[in-house]
Amino acid sequence: MDFIDITNEIEKLVKKSKAKNGFIIVFSKHTTAAIRINEKEKGIYKDFAMLSRKLLPTKQYYHHNDLNIRTENLVCDIGASDCMNGHSHCLHLLMGGTAELIPIIDRKLALGIYQRIFLIELDCPRRRKILLQIYSNEN
Amino acid sequence: MDFIDITNEIEKLVKKSKAKNGFIIVFSKHTTAAIRINEKEKGIYKDFAMLSRKLLPTKQYYHHNDLNIRTENLVCDIGASDCMNGHSHCLHLLMGGTAELIPIIDRKLALGIYQRIFLIELDCPRRRKILLQIYSNEN
Amino acid sequence: MDFIDITNEIEKLVKKSKAKNGFIIVFSKHTTAAIRINEKEKGIYKDFAMLSRKLLPTKQYYHHNDLNIRTENLVCDIGASDCMNGHSHCLHLLMGGTAELIPIIDRKLALGIYQRIFLIELDCPRRRKILLQIYSNEN
Repeated sequence: MDFIDITNEIEKLVKKSKAKNGFIIVFSKHTTAAIRINEKEKGIYKDFAMLSRKLLPTKQYYHHNDLNIRTENLVCDIGASDCMNGHSHCLHLLMGGTAELIPIIDRKLALGIYQRIFLIELDCPRRRKILLQIYSNEN
Repeated sequence: MDFIDITNEIEKLVKKSKAKNGFIIVFSKHTTAAIRINEKEKGIYKDFAMLSRKLLPTKQYYHHNDLNIRTENLVCDIGASDCMNGHSHCLHLLMGGTAELIPIIDRKLALGIYQRIFLIELDCPRRRKILLQIYSNEN
Repeated sequence: MDFIDITNEIEKLVKKSKAKNGFIIVFSKHTTAAIRINEKEKGIYKDFAMLSRKLLPTKQYYHHNDLNIRTENLVCDIGASDCMNGHSHCLHLLMGGTAELIPIIDRKLALGIYQRIFLIELDCPRRRKILLQIYSNEN
């Protein structure tokens, strides 16, 4: 599990867009990587990893990982181990986090003082795509 | 628990709407049925049902199910057993999932390769209503 | 943990806004307070508090609470105990709930019969700020 703070990149794109007031959609195109807003503090990342291991031990039996019974989506884009991520799918289903929506006010993300936007990798490391859409009140 | 893939129906409505670029709001009008994006694979549904039973056994005590102390919302629309869903409410509170928001690009849902939109039934089977709103950049 | 029903206040603001059709964004500016839609019934609040104590006991070790190793965000706005909220951050990360988005139809929130909008306090009681943005189809 990895927490990647993407707030600065998003903030830059908001400024570049010239939207004064509106909102931005931050949309993960993946089923095992979540977008989430929380505090930037390393201890929290460890605490959350601990919780997720408690809820969803990687060593436990997952139907999704059982290639003797599984028939769907067997072509894995990064090798066979790609399929061994039943725990990641379950965590993503529980957490949600396909998208966050953040208001824009005066050309800035209207985040609270401790709020940062993260891509949380719930699977083994891989390339991820995030789709951003900015909506402005002034068309 | 049941996973109902509603992606095709939503995709059809997006095409019909003639919105070229924008987004769609998929909103569940229920407190024990969630909208969620994840992979379409039967094993995952079973793994998630397993997790939810572990977190929230149906046989456990729930204040919501205790008709000796409960005073609110006692009129149940599908009979008395309708009230015995404390575990469903707790799971919905934990998961969220009242709504998903999906970008539309070039008249299509901008979903990732494995992303499908589900209505997840957290309660016993019943009729459900989903509200859709499509927003287009070109007014 | 506390459930604060903010539906009526939001409904009033929607009416005042004169938006006929559109949607409202309800955005929490905090990392330990969630916006969530569910049923207004006291038993559910207790059941959910029970679940959260089971998942994240306050007495357990949290890296976030360990001031011997922690280096980030050590200035606490309401005193030292403010930092002892590792469990609140973990729950917020799991739940999400920074924002809810609710469709507006005919000047009203398009909520289902049992749906109410809550601010859920995951931390000790404190002042909270919620940002609302209303979007209307008729510019």
